[in-house]
Amino acid sequence: MIVVMKQSAKQSQIEHVRQRIEGLGLKSHVIVGEERTVVAAVGAKRQQGTREALESCEGVDNVVPILAPYKIASTEVQQHPSVVTIGSLTIGGGTIGVIAGPCSVEGEEQILETARQVKKGGATALRGGAFKPRTSPYSFQGLKEEGLRLLALAREETGLAIVTEVMTPSNVELVASYADVLQIGARNMQNYDLLAEVGKQPKPVLLKRGPSATMEEFLLAAEYILDQGNKQVLLCERGIRTFESHTRFTLPLASVPYLRQHTHLPIVIDPSHGTGKASLVAPMARAAVAVGCDGLIVEVHPSPEEAWSDGAQTLTPTAFEQMVAECSKVAEAVGMKIGT
Amino acid sequence: MIVVMKQSAKQSQIEHVRQRIEGLGLKSHVIVGEERTVVAAVGAKRQQGTREALESCEGVDNVVPILAPYKIASTEVQQHPSVVTIGSLTIGGGTIGVIAGPCSVEGEEQILETARQVKKGGATALRGGAFKPRTSPYSFQGLKEEGLRLLALAREETGLAIVTEVMTPSNVELVASYADVLQIGARNMQNYDLLAEVGKQPKPVLLKRGPSATMEEFLLAAEYILDQGNKQVLLCERGIRTFESHTRFTLPLASVPYLRQHTHLPIVIDPSHGTGKASLVAPMARAAVAVGCDGLIVEVHPSPEEAWSDGAQTLTPTAFEQMVAECSKVAEAVGMKIGT
Amino acid sequence: MIVVMKQSAKQSQIEHVRQRIEGLGLKSHVIVGEERTVVAAVGAKRQQGTREALESCEGVDNVVPILAPYKIASTEVQQHPSVVTIGSLTIGGGTIGVIAGPCSVEGEEQILETARQVKKGGATALRGGAFKPRTSPYSFQGLKEEGLRLLALAREETGLAIVTEVMTPSNVELVASYADVLQIGARNMQNYDLLAEVGKQPKPVLLKRGPSATMEEFLLAAEYILDQGNKQVLLCERGIRTFESHTRFTLPLASVPYLRQHTHLPIVIDPSHGTGKASLVAPMARAAVAVGCDGLIVEVHPSPEEAWSDGAQTLTPTAFEQMVAECSKVAEAVGMKIGT
Amino acid sequence: MIVVMKQSAKQSQIEHVRQRIEGLGLKSHVIVGEERTVVAAVGAKRQQGTREALESCEGVDNVVPILAPYKIASTEVQQHPSVVTIGSLTIGGGTIGVIAGPCSVEGEEQILETARQVKKGGATALRGGAFKPRTSPYSFQGLKEEGLRLLALAREETGLAIVTEVMTPSNVELVASYADVLQIGARNMQNYDLLAEVGKQPKPVLLKRGPSATMEEFLLAAEYILDQGNKQVLLCERGIRTFESHTRFTLPLASVPYLRQHTHLPIVIDPSHGTGKASLVAPMARAAVAVGCDGLIVEVHPSPEEAWSDGAQTLTPTAFEQMVAECSKVAEAVGMKIGT
Repeated sequence: MIVVMKQSAKQSQIEHVRQRIEGLGLKSHVIVGEERTVVAAVGAKRQQGTREALESCEGVDNVVPILAPYKIASTEVQQHPSVVTIGSLTIGGGTIGVIAGPCSVEGEEQILETARQVKKGGATALRGGAFKPRTSPYSFQGLKEEGLRLLALAREETGLAIVTEVMTPSNVELVASYADVLQIGARNMQNYDLLAEVGKQPKPVLLKRGPSATMEEFLLAAEYILDQGNKQVLLCERGIRTFESHTRFTLPLASVPYLRQHTHLPIVIDPSHGTGKASLVAPMARAAVAVGCDGLIVEVHPSPEEAWSDGAQTLTPTAFEQMVAECSKVAEAVGMKIGT
Repeated sequence: MIVVMKQSAKQSQIEHVRQRIEGLGLKSHVIVGEERTVVAAVGAKRQQGTREALESCEGVDNVVPILAPYKIASTEVQQHPSVVTIGSLTIGGGTIGVIAGPCSVEGEEQILETARQVKKGGATALRGGAFKPRTSPYSFQGLKEEGLRLLALAREETGLAIVTEVMTPSNVELVASYADVLQIGARNMQNYDLLAEVGKQPKPVLLKRGPSATMEEFLLAAEYILDQGNKQVLLCERGIRTFESHTRFTLPLASVPYLRQHTHLPIVIDPSHGTGKASLVAPMARAAVAVGCDGLIVEVHPSPEEAWSDGAQTLTPTAFEQMVAECSKVAEAVGMKIGT
Repeated sequence: MIVVMKQSAKQSQIEHVRQRIEGLGLKSHVIVGEERTVVAAVGAKRQQGTREALESCEGVDNVVPILAPYKIASTEVQQHPSVVTIGSLTIGGGTIGVIAGPCSVEGEEQILETARQVKKGGATALRGGAFKPRTSPYSFQGLKEEGLRLLALAREETGLAIVTEVMTPSNVELVASYADVLQIGARNMQNYDLLAEVGKQPKPVLLKRGPSATMEEFLLAAEYILDQGNKQVLLCERGIRTFESHTRFTLPLASVPYLRQHTHLPIVIDPSHGTGKASLVAPMARAAVAVGCDGLIVEVHPSPEEAWSDGAQTLTPTAFEQMVAECSKVAEAVGMKIGT
Repeated sequence: MIVVMKQSAKQSQIEHVRQRIEGLGLKSHVIVGEERTVVAAVGAKRQQGTREALESCEGVDNVVPILAPYKIASTEVQQHPSVVTIGSLTIGGGTIGVIAGPCSVEGEEQILETARQVKKGGATALRGGAFKPRTSPYSFQGLKEEGLRLLALAREETGLAIVTEVMTPSNVELVASYADVLQIGARNMQNYDLLAEVGKQPKPVLLKRGPSATMEEFLLAAEYILDQGNKQVLLCERGIRTFESHTRFTLPLASVPYLRQHTHLPIVIDPSHGTGKASLVAPMARAAVAVGCDGLIVEVHPSPEEAWSDGAQTLTPTAFEQMVAECSKVAEAVGMKIGT
């Protein structure tokens, strides 16, 4: 940790900072520049109060942390990439998993038909919302347990692994009893009680990045899950909120190589939410594969126009099949493969 | 709702959109422009599926909604401003409530001392975190129920109303049994199970805006609470995430007059989180009063440097007292008053 | 144009808006909804004052424009993609041009050596700054005309087309006398006198998107050039400013398919400025090719560590050669080709 | 400057960085932490290449600069606040100047009438665009020199100082021959040739912040002007581009106290562009005064609905007069005064 003093800092203030650092069990190094003084605090303890304590000292301009605050997620702890395998779905280690399905489970016929179609199109897992976080209280909120039951039925018929969202701690056990992968939605990325709860059960967790989360906040959210003992966390980039209005969110694919350098966790891209427009999904899926992602999650519905939610960003089964075919070629070009 | 067709849209596609609108129970009006056609869908029903269904139709470029999707929060439903009064705290109706206290409850002496000091400085309610949402799992997570107990003790001694955060539905009853106002943190603004739960109990709720929430999303989150029967919702602007890095968040004070035009709910400003720097808190508090807010929530600690969290943005009791004095003058200048 | 009236709008205000529309030479259609009235203004004239005049009328809530304000750049005017060819460089029509070179021209040996290396590595044009827009007045501002002369020398030896920036109208003639493609930097995207000036000369122009420009503003900036008669405009996406701090800018690759749908102009991606980190350049270049771009512009220096500017985002010749090899495979996978 | 090495950095890489620092004429201090090593580079020289050179060294994770890169603008160089006085306009030193007038000069009657009205309403200077930077090439571009002539006429009649924009270096002499204050628009904040040119003439310059400029970039743009010898620079905050769409820009008033801490230059707020909505202008003007600004610049037109540009954010003379009256009370409350 580097404490940058103000130019106007007095000697007594510098000395106070130095003593504060030592009092926190760290070593201090004072470096006197021609215009300013900085004080380095050295020691491996990531005590969270440290930064804040030093920032509040008089004469301090700002404090620059040096160590990444996450540990278990970090490549500093594990250097080889993690691979998550559950049922039909493999994500990581050169294999790109493709999770596809409707925004919401709407009924038996709809989910079974979608499951068949996405399997045919190349999906290795089925997504579908049973508990739906909706911006408005007046929107359809999902079929709840009935939706979970229908997803299990689709798995039974097609063999596809099931990915579905859990919104609140008290439902984790229920959702985990049906699902293969528990999804934490972007709105809940910092719902810490929920993160801890999914961390206590053994099913893999797909954690979506919040639309205004930094990379560090994203990895620390994963750390909440990992810290409870569940090591199977999939990071999902689904776009950030920016001034751009021609897309629903801005999908920053540089997240993939950045995360690869800093974490061993597999990285999934969601080009459906990341763009909000069906016509942009396939190009961004190809780009996601080229940039090196480990998985894709895509919204598909037999008839997007009839979908109860997210129709505008949903692919038809035909468009999905073509997308997977295109992505397969790109995957091959970068030494990866789509599928199982 | 206005459906804008693509320039290349065929007559059959326009006709399909028209039929779709009628099929949804709305009236359609086709307006043929020289370059494009638009189809208006008229009718009061705010069916959430409507927009999405129309966006997915072939030949559609985009859909522009006309009606605000929130109702109970809207000035269209209630035109006179709501006032929330609980114990020592009044917010709205020309009276600016001042909620002050430490980021975290750290112990009996700290919270009692702070309560005394902020009361002396002009606060009308005491804030303090017992359940703390922290970015890192390795940070101090709050004293939990013990913290609530200490807050109640501080109320007993000083008479100040207590504002404290609840993070998860299963704790709502517990927190509500101690607190006067339940706070929903920015990270939980779209934790819908939690919103519904606080909506079912009678204590007022202070709802913080998420750092990337639009005004519409913010008001719809309030709507989740209102829709459950709890009409005492305080909206709290605490800053949005932008590219600016010299402040922790960017505090957009134009939210106040904008919200005033669209909702009857009282509006509270948090200049501590909104700036992240103690030296910017008082100027922004003055500005918040001048722009017309109904309340302030400010972090104060007897010794910010010793605070277990958020020290850099925390005022000393002396600085707080001066801030309230300055704000009082500004309040008078705009025909309002600080306090009870 | 759709004029949305406030819910509280009086009949006389609606009538005033209607008359205003007719007075502007457009036809009006009043659509009375159950809660609100909207008035559509129909007519092909893109009179810029129209929107503003209507927005200012009393009782108006907001005005939604329907027509894109750009014309010459639009696919509505020209449907087949434009191809720009000059010397060794072809951009568009299935061929991906690769522009590479140092941030700044630093001297004869540096630029000649770089030119040889990037040609060997697969570049089809040479970039290099002679006039440098630098954030600080105390930074190196470029070799100016001497830099242009050295670029011409490099072209003479290698045959590579030259891409270089022009910063101010009075230098357009000078820069155009040496360069093959004139670059307009991101900071100057809305320097309208400069846009008009490069629009009056015949050399192709590479127009960089400003870091906070919307797609519409970007295309309207191109329109300034096109409107002067120069039809050879290359659009360059180089990243937008967002809250993300792990990259220098956020590079939104969805710009490529979006622009493809709305304009016939070729689209170039700059993964160097778009990420700011050498280790992220090659993955994002691959992604840019997969998403369907027409060109790449990349910073390369024989010794990035010795570069006078932008070293952290600059590739070595070896890394560049490998990047082109990877991109070639991806290009093939999507039915395109790199090069000439 | 603090060079943070990667955790995996080798001893030879650390040694290389150390030698590089010394080679650049700075002193190096190596601080070995338990997980990482950092190397401090000490010395007053703000050599711009330094950071970039060190960032490119192998084994370096990132480089943290310590010194502010601007000098003349800095409170480190001049501690007392600068005051700019020209004709009727005083900005700074406890006096809040009020610049008001139409977006564009439209004709003699319009500008004279506006000048009379804003003077009556409390303005101390007249704004009006003669050269207009417009997003679309098809929009009204200003009356040019005729507009300047009319502004001078308005000054003759009313005595108000004239503030008007200059867009390109070749027009600086012309505009300066009519205007009292030269305005640099937000789009041109980093048009360095223009900054240098206005820096060479003696009239004060009002520099608008670009919508995605950081504080550091803003102050460095001012430094370009100051560095040429012109010390009369007014900084104008007019809003940044964020995801918010209910306002045209987001107006971050925390800029005022932040800038006050870092620069002696006077600070002007533009609540018209900063919000884009007439109904938000007066509240934000009051807030700007409360937060401590030195000046306001506001759009006023005798009939906003008839204005050729920016009507939606333009006040009527009556609304303006009321705004100034409200601001005067707030100014008094914070120990300042509006006017001359």
